[in-house]
Amino acid sequence: MTGPYVLQPDPFAPGLSTSVTGIDQNGEPVETRVVTEKPLTLYLNRQEVVTMMTIGDHPDLLAVGYLKNQNMLADDDVITDIDYDDDLDVVIVRTERETNFEEKLKKKVRTSGCAQGTVFGDVMEGFETVSLSADARLKTSWLYSLTKTINTTPSLYLEAGAIHGCVLCQEDRPLVYMEDVGRHNAVDKIAGWMVLNDITASDKIFYTTGRLTSEMVIKTVMMGIPILVSRSGFTAWGVDLARQAGLTLIGRARGKRFVALAGQDRIEFDMDPLHADEEPDKIRRKGSVFAE
Amino acid sequence: MTGPYVLQPDPFAPGLSTSVTGIDQNGEPVETRVVTEKPLTLYLNRQEVVTMMTIGDHPDLLAVGYLKNQNMLADDDVITDIDYDDDLDVVIVRTERETNFEEKLKKKVRTSGCAQGTVFGDVMEGFETVSLSADARLKTSWLYSLTKTINTTPSLYLEAGAIHGCVLCQEDRPLVYMEDVGRHNAVDKIAGWMVLNDITASDKIFYTTGRLTSEMVIKTVMMGIPILVSRSGFTAWGVDLARQAGLTLIGRARGKRFVALAGQDRIEFDMDPLHADEEPDKIRRKGSVFAE
Repeated sequence: MTGPYVLQPDPFAPGLSTSVTGIDQNGEPVETRVVTEKPLTLYLNRQEVVTMMTIGDHPDLLAVGYLKNQNMLADDDVITDIDYDDDLDVVIVRTERETNFEEKLKKKVRTSGCAQGTVFGDVMEGFETVSLSADARLKTSWLYSLTKTINTTPSLYLEAGAIHGCVLCQEDRPLVYMEDVGRHNAVDKIAGWMVLNDITASDKIFYTTGRLTSEMVIKTVMMGIPILVSRSGFTAWGVDLARQAGLTLIGRARGKRFVALAGQDRIEFDMDPLHADEEPDKIRRKGSVFAE
Repeated sequence: MTGPYVLQPDPFAPGLSTSVTGIDQNGEPVETRVVTEKPLTLYLNRQEVVTMMTIGDHPDLLAVGYLKNQNMLADDDVITDIDYDDDLDVVIVRTERETNFEEKLKKKVRTSGCAQGTVFGDVMEGFETVSLSADARLKTSWLYSLTKTINTTPSLYLEAGAIHGCVLCQEDRPLVYMEDVGRHNAVDKIAGWMVLNDITASDKIFYTTGRLTSEMVIKTVMMGIPILVSRSGFTAWGVDLARQAGLTLIGRARGKRFVALAGQDRIEFDMDPLHADEEPDKIRRKGSVFAE
């Protein structure tokens, strides 16, 4: 399943997971893999911004994506350097423009999303002015094909569990699949990749394993992506915001089933759900998968 | 299933979830429930501490529990008043002792856990000095009984999904079951209940739907609870911390199966897993449950 991806997880890359020994329900020894996380401190020019817990596979993408999604990197900002020091677990993003976010950094909101405890005061500012592509489409055949491919792609999730994943897609092709212990890190890595590769957002589909909370919706809209899909569920505010922004919002997408609560007009029902596969047992009972 | 609980979810209480209309995979209209979240701003005496997104069912417990778990409320602090204003969505906790956490509030760490973006500098301080009860036990018969009862308790999770739950238990009895959009809020509500009711921690079992990350382990240890169980998985650092603190750490607990990666000595295998029930389909395929 490596064909379609530009970037995908490398579950056996050193440092991302570790093998541990314990006992199972029979009292028998069992060896299993668990994900590893480490702190990464992000600087924008000379300013310390935040310390994030991350699996640490793409510190550059995470740094740039975080800054972009927190409105600390403008569309016309020129990144001159990304400096990652893996001894100190520090990454410094340098821009041509001088930056000063001292005041912004003071206003924090602890929110309901994973790994997202900080929403800077004016992230919502741009939200009301974003206009998402009216021409973007989601064919249900693409949706079924995407979820099937994504669910069978080798990943830390399948190997060790306890991790979130996001995938940037185009039509029925998954492009970039990112994982992290914190769902917002996975989103930010994709955002970082899009910034650094100057990727168009208006024809993309965003898939996430995480819940469709307000922050998830806000991020997707601010990234300019018109379609958001999750295997998980919704919150009322997330639905409201999606409707406000004209985002196509699809949740509880498992096997044949899904529910669309916003932006239904973009959906083309070109495939009879009876012909879609049920979700394989292995995915459904994910919590009990042991790596041998 | 209302017998054993002191406090349990009231999924149909007004304001916690809302009904929305959308379309399903057949393009047919579907009505479904989604959880609602709203901001709650917490003050400790005159100081604004944080704004949290919460379903809003127990602002008092959430406020006290948050402060306790962030080390902003000492064991000997006397709470004189808890003032909740539901128009302003503000809760003020007042203590006899004057408090000043201006400096502490500056040091933030974005972590991998849900709804936990802030770890104040010295939360880890107490961690190394905590001594968990060596006499505490977990019989596997209790574990199976607990998960079965919890999974069938009416809850927002079963009605609307996209929400985390935590349950404080004693032997095979679930006592307090709290839910919230953010997993850490659910934990904090239980901590708040324990503070306000002066509850012993050393003989309790903590069950969570969320992942066993470092923050989850730290919180459980700091609350003095010696056994932590989750249906979800582990992170390496969570496992390390659990072993360091002597916490019994059980994850991937679904139906018959579980994995224990720390504190195995407290577990008594008094029941043949063959006699335990498999997880009902409804729980396994949770993501596709529609409320009629």
